[in-house]
Amino acid sequence: MSKADPHISETSFHVRYAETDAMGFVHHAVYLVWFEEGRSAFIREQGWSYAEIERSGYFLVASDLRARYLKAARYDQLVTVRVWLAQVKSRQLAFACEVLDSESRDCLFSANLKLHCLNRAGKIARIPSDWQAWLRE
Amino acid sequence: MSKADPHISETSFHVRYAETDAMGFVHHAVYLVWFEEGRSAFIREQGWSYAEIERSGYFLVASDLRARYLKAARYDQLVTVRVWLAQVKSRQLAFACEVLDSESRDCLFSANLKLHCLNRAGKIARIPSDWQAWLRE
Amino acid sequence: MSKADPHISETSFHVRYAETDAMGFVHHAVYLVWFEEGRSAFIREQGWSYAEIERSGYFLVASDLRARYLKAARYDQLVTVRVWLAQVKSRQLAFACEVLDSESRDCLFSANLKLHCLNRAGKIARIPSDWQAWLRE
Amino acid sequence: MSKADPHISETSFHVRYAETDAMGFVHHAVYLVWFEEGRSAFIREQGWSYAEIERSGYFLVASDLRARYLKAARYDQLVTVRVWLAQVKSRQLAFACEVLDSESRDCLFSANLKLHCLNRAGKIARIPSDWQAWLRE
Repeated sequence: MSKADPHISETSFHVRYAETDAMGFVHHAVYLVWFEEGRSAFIREQGWSYAEIERSGYFLVASDLRARYLKAARYDQLVTVRVWLAQVKSRQLAFACEVLDSESRDCLFSANLKLHCLNRAGKIARIPSDWQAWLRE
Repeated sequence: MSKADPHISETSFHVRYAETDAMGFVHHAVYLVWFEEGRSAFIREQGWSYAEIERSGYFLVASDLRARYLKAARYDQLVTVRVWLAQVKSRQLAFACEVLDSESRDCLFSANLKLHCLNRAGKIARIPSDWQAWLRE
Repeated sequence: MSKADPHISETSFHVRYAETDAMGFVHHAVYLVWFEEGRSAFIREQGWSYAEIERSGYFLVASDLRARYLKAARYDQLVTVRVWLAQVKSRQLAFACEVLDSESRDCLFSANLKLHCLNRAGKIARIPSDWQAWLRE
Repeated sequence: MSKADPHISETSFHVRYAETDAMGFVHHAVYLVWFEEGRSAFIREQGWSYAEIERSGYFLVASDLRARYLKAARYDQLVTVRVWLAQVKSRQLAFACEVLDSESRDCLFSANLKLHCLNRAGKIARIPSDWQAWLRE
């Protein structure tokens, strides 16, 4: 991955009713679910599959999160989740995310999440080299 | 709505990681969220919006559910939610739903949900006539 | 289990904000999560643990659900989940559930859920005999 | 609130099955729901109710989150959510949270969340003075 031109994944969907709360807006925990779906899409678009990564015995586990809530999303609104790789280390990745209103492109939410690579024993492990190579491309 | 040829809405998406549970499959409550998203899509496809229905002071509230779980869905699987109107009464609707594996078209889940129409006071109300006409078309 | 005197588990908790939706009430999928927590409590109270059942290689998987929504629950309301065994067969169980307002004892929700016993291969299996004996006590 | 001796709310409950994901641990978004339930408990313990705050026309809305995931929680584990006020400003509050294993008191998760006070029009507003006084006590 060249820093000058990182791949940015964009996934769009309508806000589900179940994702709202009594305030009438999307519950703040839901954005983490969307961010995760954005990471899944990012990996899928690169021809990989996070499900396969897990089957090979490695897990990406959230370790550190920063998130900013800028504007509330509402039921049925079309939103776009943008996700890109912010950092690749031997044992850790960071993904960045923005959630936009799909029409106005207003930013509703932004976040940065660090993930550790764990092996099946639950220990922090090196990210497998083929996967690292792919991530750095 | 002619029973011979009801409109069937089809919405497809990937299973989100957050929708799985420790068994490795989609949690059984999540299918209700998908069914609901299918109803939203159904209404959207007809040029209506459930958000507008609520703004006009009417609410559709779940009253009776039958659901059958046939095959488990997994993370990242592409699923298709099919939703159609099963019944229209003056104060009550029923929607039916099937969740399919998008590729094999195997049925994973089927359900039937009755919903009451409530007004802002929380009382059971007649479904507004323009909306009834639209539903019966 | 003697039908004359089944064990009924009662678990009480406050409705969480995240469990509400834009209608201002608890989302209808959440009751399934509460019912499940009631089953966990039921098993815990009998000195068993569903986590151990899974570690021993057996899984209880939802197969058939009937649910009735009677009265809406709200944020912060204290609710009581009552769960009991409705049926024990060699390969299948059924649990029943009522959710009450803890104070008035009004019934908000009632449901019946059939669960299959699966083994690690995902095939329907006999419920292990020690566990069956315990269930029938 | 004297910084030397802030009130710390402690709420304990079992991890629900629905809160786990395919990795076998609690999904990372769920901790935000627990943190929120801890804030509800905090307010409840002080003789206030967040539901009443909303009825009086004020809303506390998440604006900035920092979270660290230290150890994974599992189904049926007894966890304790500790919540305290970290900051009171005229238009903004910050709550801090730790989730512990109830037995070992190991810390699984820690977070700090800033919340804005909004009025019914959705504008940032001063926290009502009686509530501010109570918060600063």
